[in-house]
Amino acid sequence: MKKYYLLTPGPTPIPPEVAAKTSLPIIHHRTKEFEEIFTEVEEGLKEVFLTRHDVFMIASSGTGAMESAVVNLLSPGDKVLVASCGVFGNRWIKILETYGIKPIAYCEEWGKDVSPEKIKDILLKNEGIKVVYTTHTETSTGTVNDLQAISKVIKENSNAILVVDAISGLGGQELRMDEWDIEVVVTGSQKGLMNAPGLSFVAVNERIWQIVEKATLPRFYFDWRQMKKMLSKKQTPFTPSITLIIGVNEAIRRIKKEGIENMWRYYEKLSLATREAAKALGLEIFSSRPSSVVTAIKSPSSVDSTKLVNLLRDRYGISIADGQDVLKGKIFRIAHMGYINEFDIIISISAVEKALNELGYSVEYGKGVRAAESVLFQ
Amino acid sequence: MKKYYLLTPGPTPIPPEVAAKTSLPIIHHRTKEFEEIFTEVEEGLKEVFLTRHDVFMIASSGTGAMESAVVNLLSPGDKVLVASCGVFGNRWIKILETYGIKPIAYCEEWGKDVSPEKIKDILLKNEGIKVVYTTHTETSTGTVNDLQAISKVIKENSNAILVVDAISGLGGQELRMDEWDIEVVVTGSQKGLMNAPGLSFVAVNERIWQIVEKATLPRFYFDWRQMKKMLSKKQTPFTPSITLIIGVNEAIRRIKKEGIENMWRYYEKLSLATREAAKALGLEIFSSRPSSVVTAIKSPSSVDSTKLVNLLRDRYGISIADGQDVLKGKIFRIAHMGYINEFDIIISISAVEKALNELGYSVEYGKGVRAAESVLFQ
Repeated sequence: MKKYYLLTPGPTPIPPEVAAKTSLPIIHHRTKEFEEIFTEVEEGLKEVFLTRHDVFMIASSGTGAMESAVVNLLSPGDKVLVASCGVFGNRWIKILETYGIKPIAYCEEWGKDVSPEKIKDILLKNEGIKVVYTTHTETSTGTVNDLQAISKVIKENSNAILVVDAISGLGGQELRMDEWDIEVVVTGSQKGLMNAPGLSFVAVNERIWQIVEKATLPRFYFDWRQMKKMLSKKQTPFTPSITLIIGVNEAIRRIKKEGIENMWRYYEKLSLATREAAKALGLEIFSSRPSSVVTAIKSPSSVDSTKLVNLLRDRYGISIADGQDVLKGKIFRIAHMGYINEFDIIISISAVEKALNELGYSVEYGKGVRAAESVLFQ
Repeated sequence: MKKYYLLTPGPTPIPPEVAAKTSLPIIHHRTKEFEEIFTEVEEGLKEVFLTRHDVFMIASSGTGAMESAVVNLLSPGDKVLVASCGVFGNRWIKILETYGIKPIAYCEEWGKDVSPEKIKDILLKNEGIKVVYTTHTETSTGTVNDLQAISKVIKENSNAILVVDAISGLGGQELRMDEWDIEVVVTGSQKGLMNAPGLSFVAVNERIWQIVEKATLPRFYFDWRQMKKMLSKKQTPFTPSITLIIGVNEAIRRIKKEGIENMWRYYEKLSLATREAAKALGLEIFSSRPSSVVTAIKSPSSVDSTKLVNLLRDRYGISIADGQDVLKGKIFRIAHMGYINEFDIIISISAVEKALNELGYSVEYGKGVRAAESVLFQ
């Protein structure tokens, strides 16, 4: 009676009504019907990003959207800062280096969030930084950065603009693009937006359009200028991911019904329950500033987390995530983003109890689940 | 009792069993289940491309795959030739120019195919051309190029490699990558591969790997080196379009069952029927070397093809395509690629008969359909 449970930080489960919409007969993208959907998605995205600015849709993974935020903003020789605290923060560095931009790389110790104070110091010591790239929720360590404080120090101490990778966090963790004065936010379809991967989004504050016009790095597929031109016609420069856009529309309807702030609060509760459960089992939380969308838990020293993850996946059909890079084998990660509810958390904790015992690390059955229930149900 | 009929050259209809597969609960891409699907798709793609070489899958529209064939092969100053006969051939020029490569642009008159002889002349007059970019079936004019002859003159008269945009043609029109000695072939998911848009494919002959390693144009998301590295692990560098890959797998099973050569013959018959029907209605075929995947028909001088297309779409739910660029209003295009059969052709011809009469161009009812049936059923 094997069932499959997806509790990984992307892809995440897709609500059946979203999946059903994407499997209806496909429609052409140059029709009134699609224009209506496109308009509804655009308006809905603004409510999720909390912005009044344009949101572009790109047929690509989230990384493509990140690359677009490099090639559309920079020219050779530009001075930029990357504030990274994990695998995905470091991706900004790799993309920049690919384009010959050598960023000032502020790499925080993994498990900590990037420090607004340190960003301030770097900005003051390095005049003329044009862009600061950072991450909303760092999926590899389960950490949330204080974007509001980061944006504040940037605005107070420089003319730099702020570009945020919110691929895993948007929809699940507080992010107020306009209120916090973030110029660019990128995300993907397969996390908080509850759809399959392959579609990405970039919200761009109009104010920086001059920078985009002057940037000389080459771009064709990822050219925001073409996207902006087509947006007014409710179109994309190239054939859009029609079915994924239709699915995201359905997911956003769900988010709007619930209210974005209520969503954040809900995931906050799920993440708190997960942390309390882990602690009850004698386990430590990896991050000192844990995010609401994924919880990274240190594996007991006697348990290889890779084995734990493989056991749960291969024998019990439950997918959670191992650590990445140097954290492989050291931590395991339980996601609570997108279409995840209280009982999914119970399943994941119950599964961890089972796996730990099977792998020789004895825990009292029900202890983690009880702690989770105390948070979730009381 | 409105029904919707999609007879446009992308997106094309999706077989229900393909759509159904893509709407099943999503699975994680780092699982044995997905690896098995990935392996099956890879093997299947080789049978469709008729190649023994690697085929990369990219989460992007076809244009992204085209861009990958520019950034992975070239360095500033490289000499390249574009042999274009329409909108999509010209896209190569635009992408190249974006990256500072000024190609020798051989732009054939629209409606004609590119001439192998002229390519030969250009190659002989311009020593050191590194890459020739061209198109398999030019969707904007309904023309098929003679890739076999083009490849032959290139091999006989230069050291250039051949890169082919087969986005609209692959699966529908003869293309034998290895036998015809084509080094790079790109395509998309939403035409012959009978799925939704948002996934693209690039087949690369191993022989040219040295060129890829030496090319210095910047690339991150579209980097073939990373794709190759991950391919051996049955993975992609970034989160793949899981659901679209699962759908393509289902579509390829269908193609394999039928046999790729039988598919070509089938579409050849559909296109012949469409041409005969048009002629029976007194209309001219736009292309002098018509493709099997889309038929471009000249609109009568008294009929604006934009009006015809809009009428069919808005009033009768039948989507065919208008001309693009300078051909807008002049031609209309009926696609027969992917999940299209004999009765879809009958519908499209019947609809054209209806629309022409409504727009004041009198045609005898049934005359086009009869001509189509003569080809299809006899």
